[in-house]
Amino acid sequence: MAMAENGRKTAAEQTPRMAFGLAAMDISGVLSPFTFPRRNNGPSDVTIKILYCGICHSDLHSIKNEWKDTVYPIVPGHEITGVVVETGSEVLKLKVGDKVGVGCLVGSCRSCENCIHHKENYCPKLLFAYNSLEADGSVTRGGYSNEIVVEEHFVVKFPEGFPLDRGAPLLCAGITVYSPIRSFGLDRPGMHVGVVGLGGLGHVAVKFGKAFGVKITVISSSPEKEEEAIKRLGADAFLLSSDAQQIQKAKGSMDGILNTISAKHALLPLILMLKSEGKMIMLGAPDQPLEFPVLPLLLEGKVLAGSCIGGMKATQEMVDFAGKHNIAADIELISVDYVNKAMERLAKGDVRYRFVIDVSNTLTPP
Amino acid sequence: MAMAENGRKTAAEQTPRMAFGLAAMDISGVLSPFTFPRRNNGPSDVTIKILYCGICHSDLHSIKNEWKDTVYPIVPGHEITGVVVETGSEVLKLKVGDKVGVGCLVGSCRSCENCIHHKENYCPKLLFAYNSLEADGSVTRGGYSNEIVVEEHFVVKFPEGFPLDRGAPLLCAGITVYSPIRSFGLDRPGMHVGVVGLGGLGHVAVKFGKAFGVKITVISSSPEKEEEAIKRLGADAFLLSSDAQQIQKAKGSMDGILNTISAKHALLPLILMLKSEGKMIMLGAPDQPLEFPVLPLLLEGKVLAGSCIGGMKATQEMVDFAGKHNIAADIELISVDYVNKAMERLAKGDVRYRFVIDVSNTLTPP
Repeated sequence: MAMAENGRKTAAEQTPRMAFGLAAMDISGVLSPFTFPRRNNGPSDVTIKILYCGICHSDLHSIKNEWKDTVYPIVPGHEITGVVVETGSEVLKLKVGDKVGVGCLVGSCRSCENCIHHKENYCPKLLFAYNSLEADGSVTRGGYSNEIVVEEHFVVKFPEGFPLDRGAPLLCAGITVYSPIRSFGLDRPGMHVGVVGLGGLGHVAVKFGKAFGVKITVISSSPEKEEEAIKRLGADAFLLSSDAQQIQKAKGSMDGILNTISAKHALLPLILMLKSEGKMIMLGAPDQPLEFPVLPLLLEGKVLAGSCIGGMKATQEMVDFAGKHNIAADIELISVDYVNKAMERLAKGDVRYRFVIDVSNTLTPP
Repeated sequence: MAMAENGRKTAAEQTPRMAFGLAAMDISGVLSPFTFPRRNNGPSDVTIKILYCGICHSDLHSIKNEWKDTVYPIVPGHEITGVVVETGSEVLKLKVGDKVGVGCLVGSCRSCENCIHHKENYCPKLLFAYNSLEADGSVTRGGYSNEIVVEEHFVVKFPEGFPLDRGAPLLCAGITVYSPIRSFGLDRPGMHVGVVGLGGLGHVAVKFGKAFGVKITVISSSPEKEEEAIKRLGADAFLLSSDAQQIQKAKGSMDGILNTISAKHALLPLILMLKSEGKMIMLGAPDQPLEFPVLPLLLEGKVLAGSCIGGMKATQEMVDFAGKHNIAADIELISVDYVNKAMERLAKGDVRYRFVIDVSNTLTPP
């Protein structure tokens, strides 16, 4: 019997450990019950009984093959919280019963410069929680399922008492905003940071920013978000992006901007809102190129940076910070049988601010 | 008699100290002899007899009003070297006879956050060496002239024996590349930095980069520049931007890129050449927006940054570093009566790599 490259038997070669969940079978993106093998728990693995899984916009892109790389059937989900039910012999930091989370990353080479510097998210061999090809040829399958087997290194531990339903979205949305706030130095009290777009990412960006003592201005095209931004989420100010006068007044006022918009939009007004040497961090990926006016960036030494999720050390730090500051996502908890409807609503932006699937209570065995 | 805001008499109010040089009188951009008042030497000023002045591409843009802000008559020139001939009573670091340089900046507020942090180049009240409006309503006039009066703070001192003709372009081109190499951390030995475009900026970028012990790859659309880049300037490698195979091979190989191109060009191949978290510094300002593909920047945490000249502390540091490492521009020294011809050649990129006007030997009094 052939062994996989890493010495592990593939899931198919083992006495199958069968898992079940929801998969999209084709480009329609409709999710339906699906049974599939998972590998047995290896020496450095933990097996997690999944309690909750957030629905990220990436899940929607992926089930509809909008990024042209989907391998069907696809089991999405990378905002996973649950409880450890099995640990391998080499597992050090986790034990059965621990409340844990798994995000976008489930593997990386562990030896490249990025991995050594705790940037597994930029490892050329990184494995995503779903739709990535493992060394043994199997495809990773995500958190819309009853359990998952993950190397300990890619699992974070939640503090005692953390609400795991509202914690699930932190594993993607949370670390995606937390990591650049920290690595680009936008975490210093008294700074002024803009958050463009008040969705899954934006709403946790407001919460983290406020916890760091930063002044947060939400910039949105939806006037109805003003009250949400300020009263519900605690932002300091709100700018309506269609109001030229408000935009003009904000010129040169921000140390940084977290831009979560994934639709095509104008960068110039946002660049002008930055102070000199201010930084705009791009967290959403429009599917068309944006117009990039170079001179305004150049004249005042401004920065446009991309940022993608975060490394595992930062993810654990983020969860610990969230625990200390009572930060969790605002969610709509749904049952498994509502997932397809939730996808329809997500496509229209109709959610405040994240759907989370109540997996363990509503996913029924085949 | 009204006093100017800063307590100085305006040049017109004083017994005029008449200067002479070359000015463009209208949008034709043709430079012709011009006589004009300069303010008398104030307490913190030095007066400099101009020996040499480099011709920067900005001079060409300005005399033709291509940036739509030219006040005619305009006396260009911001790559000035010369000798101090008079010092004010409060001048501390300079004395008559010192060999000095003046670059793009001749004034700033000295009290804003940028000024305090040695970033006068980003002061909202900065005064450029020419075509800026002073507090007294007069317009600054640059180095295509016999002498200039400048606040000591905006004058740098050249080391003994520095060739002042080849040193002149360092005051703009030199600091424009040196400042981002330092401030974006592209100065660490063993790093790999790309230099896009081998003109006035690019050729000194190669020299500074090599002096820092960095591996330099020149990226250019002109195959004939390969030999220049490697044999004449000491670059380590050359990439022809039209050669898809070379470009493909360079993917993910560079820690940083200094992009000096001011024509419209494709960013994507350059972004792909960066390692994860690599930085491309934009130093040229195309007059049209560029296409900005966000996803490739985002997926690997890459950075696009603007940078504009540099502060005075960095400028002095740059000149000292250049002295220590024998770095100076490669120039074509010209007489005053060749300046209009030089502008024509500059417009076609026909210069290796900077025209410098031999001011003191060829500028005749009216």
